Amino acid sequence: MKILEVKQLTDFKHLNLFSNKYKDRTGTLKSWIFASRSKEPQVMLNEESKSCKPSAVVIIPFHQEYKKLVMIKEFRVPLGAYQYGFPAGLMDRDEEIEETAVRELKEETGLEIVKIIRRSPAIYSSSGMTDESISLVYVICSGKPSIEWNEDSEDIEVLMISSEDAQKLLETPDIKFDVKSWIVVSTFARTGII
Amino acid sequence: MKILEVKQLTDFKHLNLFSNKYKDRTGTLKSWIFASRSKEPQVMLNEESKSCKPSAVVIIPFHQEYKKLVMIKEFRVPLGAYQYGFPAGLMDRDEEIEETAVRELKEETGLEIVKIIRRSPAIYSSSGMTDESISLVYVICSGKPSIEWNEDSEDIEVLMISSEDAQKLLETPDIKFDVKSWIVVSTFARTGII
Repeated sequence: MKILEVKQLTDFKHLNLFSNKYKDRTGTLKSWIFASRSKEPQVMLNEESKSCKPSAVVIIPFHQEYKKLVMIKEFRVPLGAYQYGFPAGLMDRDEEIEETAVRELKEETGLEIVKIIRRSPAIYSSSGMTDESISLVYVICSGKPSIEWNEDSEDIEVLMISSEDAQKLLETPDIKFDVKSWIVVSTFARTGII
Repeated sequence: MKILEVKQLTDFKHLNLFSNKYKDRTGTLKSWIFASRSKEPQVMLNEESKSCKPSAVVIIPFHQEYKKLVMIKEFRVPLGAYQYGFPAGLMDRDEEIEETAVRELKEETGLEIVKIIRRSPAIYSSSGMTDESISLVYVICSGKPSIEWNEDSEDIEVLMISSEDAQKLLETPDIKFDVKSWIVVSTFARTGII
């Protein structure tokens, strides 16, 4: 299949809707609406100018001294509710993935990265509705948890969890998880590894 | 923190933008734009009418006879590119999670569910930009892979992968993964379990 035309439908600052015109397998002309944080979604770019830079970085931190997985309980405005997840943030202009990871982990939890264990490429959050991509950065961290560096718009609690705690969290009704944290926490509960 | 007001900004059929007005930790009035597939995002509903029904179901299938993980390579219109992921689909009205899983696995891969191993609650795809939630359904499946039941708008290839294949996929440059499949495939490559 092939995209024939991309049209920007709205003009807001942080998030917009776009429409892709395409031909399906039978040759029928169709359109598909999606959301993008970028004024130039990936589909608008030619092969050479396509960047592999993700929109955001998500940090999966394991604490060196406490020997526990670090999670945050954070108010998410689009849900109007608290969600359990991992520290994360949009990449600043000209920032490298590791720099965003260091900055956001400090800002949201007060902790410092000791070592990067592994890192994903830019992977897509929900490619039926958005071109948003993230990079997952698995790290060993150190320090005392603190919310002193939180921004005003952030409402965060830092949690340290063992694999037994992980199992209990998964069994607690009404806790909201994001996709990444549910998969990581359920693997951690079953195997003790991240 | 608390949401004070929700405003619908666009009026398209499948996806819309909304704006939440809220007070941050310092009492400053702010707004946050997000995307939703629903005409009544979760944040608009009161506690009683909030449903725990996810927007979509994602199936993580392990093939009983081939002893391999089933993935699909699928054209994703918002990316204008092929992506490696798992079979998935929006829930039809009045459908239960298991019914969506059975229907979508058949439609996208031709395979049949033998047994459901485990299932996540509704978990959020990217809660900074959307209230979209999914349920992950891990299954044992059986049958011969086929794209005979694909819809016209679908362009899918069915893949059967061993944990060695998983490692090779992860090392191949320029392959696009979604978040869920990258985490599951990288755990499968390292441990042989899903």
